[in-house]
Amino acid sequence: MRETPVLDLEPGALGLDGVLTLKLELLQHTGSFKPRGAFNAMLAADVPAPGVVAASGGNFALAVAHAAAQLGHPAAIFVPESSPAAKIDRLRRSGAEIVVTGAYYDDALAAARQRATASGAVELHAFDDPLVVAGQGTCARELDRSRHALDTVVAAVGGGGLCGGVAAWYGDRARIVAVEPERCPTLARALEAGEPVDVEVSGHAADSLGARRIGAHPWAVLSRHVDEAVLVGDEAIADAQRRLWAELRIAAEPGGAAALAALLAGAYVPAADERVGVLVCGGNFDPSEVA
Amino acid sequence: MRETPVLDLEPGALGLDGVLTLKLELLQHTGSFKPRGAFNAMLAADVPAPGVVAASGGNFALAVAHAAAQLGHPAAIFVPESSPAAKIDRLRRSGAEIVVTGAYYDDALAAARQRATASGAVELHAFDDPLVVAGQGTCARELDRSRHALDTVVAAVGGGGLCGGVAAWYGDRARIVAVEPERCPTLARALEAGEPVDVEVSGHAADSLGARRIGAHPWAVLSRHVDEAVLVGDEAIADAQRRLWAELRIAAEPGGAAALAALLAGAYVPAADERVGVLVCGGNFDPSEVA
Repeated sequence: MRETPVLDLEPGALGLDGVLTLKLELLQHTGSFKPRGAFNAMLAADVPAPGVVAASGGNFALAVAHAAAQLGHPAAIFVPESSPAAKIDRLRRSGAEIVVTGAYYDDALAAARQRATASGAVELHAFDDPLVVAGQGTCARELDRSRHALDTVVAAVGGGGLCGGVAAWYGDRARIVAVEPERCPTLARALEAGEPVDVEVSGHAADSLGARRIGAHPWAVLSRHVDEAVLVGDEAIADAQRRLWAELRIAAEPGGAAALAALLAGAYVPAADERVGVLVCGGNFDPSEVA
Repeated sequence: MRETPVLDLEPGALGLDGVLTLKLELLQHTGSFKPRGAFNAMLAADVPAPGVVAASGGNFALAVAHAAAQLGHPAAIFVPESSPAAKIDRLRRSGAEIVVTGAYYDDALAAARQRATASGAVELHAFDDPLVVAGQGTCARELDRSRHALDTVVAAVGGGGLCGGVAAWYGDRARIVAVEPERCPTLARALEAGEPVDVEVSGHAADSLGARRIGAHPWAVLSRHVDEAVLVGDEAIADAQRRLWAELRIAAEPGGAAALAALLAGAYVPAADERVGVLVCGGNFDPSEVA
């Protein structure tokens, strides 16, 4: 893994209160945080000759293909049709077998499970696995060690792997703010229902945050340690992408800009002196969108 | 100023020998290293009521406009027609008076000098000023303090402000590799001639590296402390921009990618264990160019 850089912003940057530190996790191998969990799960598994299978909206697919290539395992990756062409193009160059199937993540997941059963390969789940959650949490460990005593950490939620790992690392030592797109509200609906429930997913960030249900393992952590769960609209996410580029020269995908979008849109308002870590967690998109 | 992040690459990254550390100076205020020198010169000057004037291919202009706004001085900025629209658009939103004139940097410089003489404003030179060179050198000081004991630092040369500041900081403690576009060879021609000489400039990186003559003050440092001066072609620079995006999710302008281009094109080949710092020094371009 790379230790990804952090960028400390000056007070008042982006017109926001709080003292912001951006964790530039989009500079991780394969352009997102996902290899942290993929490596952790794969290194812990007793991978048989048929190798590994996984389903993913794109970023976990790139991560599994990368980790499998590094570790010498065959990999078959199932990707939904909602994934952007930029991600699928990169996958096809990864050396893994790529199967594009179904509209959203859960459709690809069902196909991956069928394949694992038939071939004997190990199925790696993109988020609902304690080893994956723990792996993603290493991003928070790095942030914690490089910038001590943050008051608050803001992270996006799809299936909950990243935010679950962040919450598991910090526990009650920092306020955890979980951010979801309004059109992918798996954590918000789970908090309302008191348990994970299926939701409809769509919209600008669905390719990376479009899980239909929060993972049971992330939920076990998030339900105890998330202090605020907020929703952001697609336009707020797109605006955060544009401002990350225009004002900071950071080119982030929609899911990667969602955490900052919560601050820019006022869905989470820090105090003037609050030290806030913001995870910018993916950059796999076409940068002409922010040109 | 921001302390800009550094990214340590793993051995073998980008297919290169050496152990590379990228200094992400494109994440500086205004998208390049230039505010370091602009602030240093402006804070040292006794700025009169008419304020400051400057000429620039774009990045120094943005830096002067930013620093003047922060310090409360009026600013008039002269920009050559070769500057990309993305830079001119940003300048027009900076609050400074913007005059687009002449084909290249030196034409804009002549116009700026006329204005300074007429108005009594202080002229800030983009690179040929010891205070500007020293200011740019703070980028090297940060790199030095964050990653001790680099063997080599690779930096682009236009008028020589950045590389001069880097060489002034490191002196003989690190090998200094200066990189120029083949079509903007101000340092290469000065080294041949034994003194600064005028050259023709054009090509992909001319908007940020298109000074016609190396500055006398940078030359005083570079002529003593540059260990290798190498040239890279426009296609190598464009390729470095594409690979920075495709493999690292860093969106750099041509001049910002020139130092890495020298490594990717084999113009400078480090030893297998050589610790090499590479300055990625600007991001003011249209990112659809690397999409």
